[in-house]
Amino acid sequence: MAEYVYLPIPLLDDFCMTAFKKLGFKKNECRIITDVLLMSDKFGIESHGMQRLVRYHKGIEKGLIDVKAKPEVVHDCKTSAVIDAHDSMGQLVGHKAMELAIKKAKRYGVGIVSVKNSNHFGIAGYYAKMASDAGLLGMAFTNSEAIMVPTFGKLAMLGSNPIAIAMPAEPYDFFFDASTTVVTRGKLEMYNKAEKPLPEGWALNKDGNASTDAPDVLSNIVAKNGGGIMPLGGNTEQLGSHKGYGYGMICEIFCSILSMGTTSNYTMQNGKSGICHGFIAIDPKNFGNAGAIKEHLSSYLRDLRNSPKADGQPRIYTHGEKEVENTARIMKEGAPVNINTLREMVEFANFVGINPKKYFGEHADAVKTDKMFAGNY
Amino acid sequence: MAEYVYLPIPLLDDFCMTAFKKLGFKKNECRIITDVLLMSDKFGIESHGMQRLVRYHKGIEKGLIDVKAKPEVVHDCKTSAVIDAHDSMGQLVGHKAMELAIKKAKRYGVGIVSVKNSNHFGIAGYYAKMASDAGLLGMAFTNSEAIMVPTFGKLAMLGSNPIAIAMPAEPYDFFFDASTTVVTRGKLEMYNKAEKPLPEGWALNKDGNASTDAPDVLSNIVAKNGGGIMPLGGNTEQLGSHKGYGYGMICEIFCSILSMGTTSNYTMQNGKSGICHGFIAIDPKNFGNAGAIKEHLSSYLRDLRNSPKADGQPRIYTHGEKEVENTARIMKEGAPVNINTLREMVEFANFVGINPKKYFGEHADAVKTDKMFAGNY
Repeated sequence: MAEYVYLPIPLLDDFCMTAFKKLGFKKNECRIITDVLLMSDKFGIESHGMQRLVRYHKGIEKGLIDVKAKPEVVHDCKTSAVIDAHDSMGQLVGHKAMELAIKKAKRYGVGIVSVKNSNHFGIAGYYAKMASDAGLLGMAFTNSEAIMVPTFGKLAMLGSNPIAIAMPAEPYDFFFDASTTVVTRGKLEMYNKAEKPLPEGWALNKDGNASTDAPDVLSNIVAKNGGGIMPLGGNTEQLGSHKGYGYGMICEIFCSILSMGTTSNYTMQNGKSGICHGFIAIDPKNFGNAGAIKEHLSSYLRDLRNSPKADGQPRIYTHGEKEVENTARIMKEGAPVNINTLREMVEFANFVGINPKKYFGEHADAVKTDKMFAGNY
Repeated sequence: MAEYVYLPIPLLDDFCMTAFKKLGFKKNECRIITDVLLMSDKFGIESHGMQRLVRYHKGIEKGLIDVKAKPEVVHDCKTSAVIDAHDSMGQLVGHKAMELAIKKAKRYGVGIVSVKNSNHFGIAGYYAKMASDAGLLGMAFTNSEAIMVPTFGKLAMLGSNPIAIAMPAEPYDFFFDASTTVVTRGKLEMYNKAEKPLPEGWALNKDGNASTDAPDVLSNIVAKNGGGIMPLGGNTEQLGSHKGYGYGMICEIFCSILSMGTTSNYTMQNGKSGICHGFIAIDPKNFGNAGAIKEHLSSYLRDLRNSPKADGQPRIYTHGEKEVENTARIMKEGAPVNINTLREMVEFANFVGINPKKYFGEHADAVKTDKMFAGNY
């Protein structure tokens, strides 16, 4: 069984800032990339923080990510824009695109920006939160390497295609960020690293039948043999598979369709990622009194938390609550890092030319084994 | 077991036009109401067409719906507006609100309109399709009487909260319209009328435990005893219950939060429905060449339909395909109307003062029994 080490957030911050600087990113760019990654670890979303460093490492190594790329606004109207990322780090173009959407929203009420030719941008929620931190309603979308098998299919044709939304509320903002698949690929990778079978109802084998075999599913995905993850709602219409597939399509429309970019089924071809993103910012003050709207949402969220619990359930959560509580805990206890993820971080340190022992001490030696895990690259 | 009769669409059209005129609606208003209802029956969405007439009948009888209401724009900015429906038929304010969103989108690229103090507006997809028929990307949302139980709860706190989206494509538009619950209340009512147990994974009893007992679930909902329908993703986080609950929240934000209207948990109180809607229109030409974007979407939809099928599955659908095929079939064969729904239609005819025999002939007599079904009012 895989083990965990707990690493302090400031240490991980320093590690990321130093590593991305070594790769050639400017200081302000390192700040954005590091903030996006660590938000995931602080929120307790293990799948999208340090666990994903290996993808950036391999992406830069293979040339999918261009460290020197300058994202370019290729279409610009009052309320909308399209940005060609020119293969930049997703975090950098994502940050720029949401800043533009926010600017448009402050001037015209709404801003919608679609991005093409990008790379994995971390958690979608980071960008939605940029808008809510500015007092706006924010949404963010991204497609990804194909991983979702459409209802009745056996080949992955859509990405995990998350939809994130954030909106100001008290005592904490509404914050919802979730893939339109039952689970993300990152969750499959975590089960793979932990050497545990997948829960029922998550994944399909290469023939389109349900499977709990994580290494088999992941290696079939990498080899494009077929199979993948089910849409939210599983693989039957009775439980709403077509709905998860539909939400995945909404994501695809705001990312790859409006930008004329690469749909998930054609990403990762010809040495390009081709990932696309979408960003929406809406200024509530264009609907009335922004303070009253914020209080109206806060009151509804309180009603939800205070509503009667199911037999045996101590608590009803509203979206964003767990993230706030996890951040408080993880800032104190450190972020849980799977020993296999740590191995990837040690390799990343070696790749960029920094001494892993400086950051991870004895752990840097402990992870020196030959055992690697299939399907994570 | 319940039986079905097949009634021609032109007959149902004539019936609705005549009945709503008798209720005091103007001719153009009858046209909109009838079009919304019959689109549902033509699309094969039995739960939201003739099956729902009884709700309008009872809504008008009880005074929830004001036949003479004049919806009023109470807040108006470049890209957004809020409309107070003043208890109008949902279809009428819905049509007006999407027309306004389309007008804003044509001028500024995007239009977002939220509506408060309305009533049930039929299928959300009707309004999204208004935008796609105008060459735009359209979205529509509505809250409803509370029916969705939040994850780990036992009391319904959100509506069925559908999200609909439509966008121009060839050979038919992309059209996705689905509740964020596993199924709609209308589906439960259909099982109830058909006297069949509910499938597993749909509903919760008054203690928050899974239930397949349709009359019990429906009567608990009506009496507000607890229980209701699960979010898409069921009632466990492992299968993504929090995601369906999150999509329900997105719907609620565009409907009741931005409009400062009534959240689902407070609808149907003090002799008011208080239902809220949301409408978004986006002009693709503000992102580039609208024709090229349409072809890009069409090409992706073709890829999805042509992708490899799971073992034993003959076909992969894209959203909107079934609706087009159902319309062709139902225009020829007539709409299937459950005998219990027909009974409600006969009562509706008697209520408005038209002779049911004129429309339903021998069927009008055949449905004269005392047996009524709980939970549909």
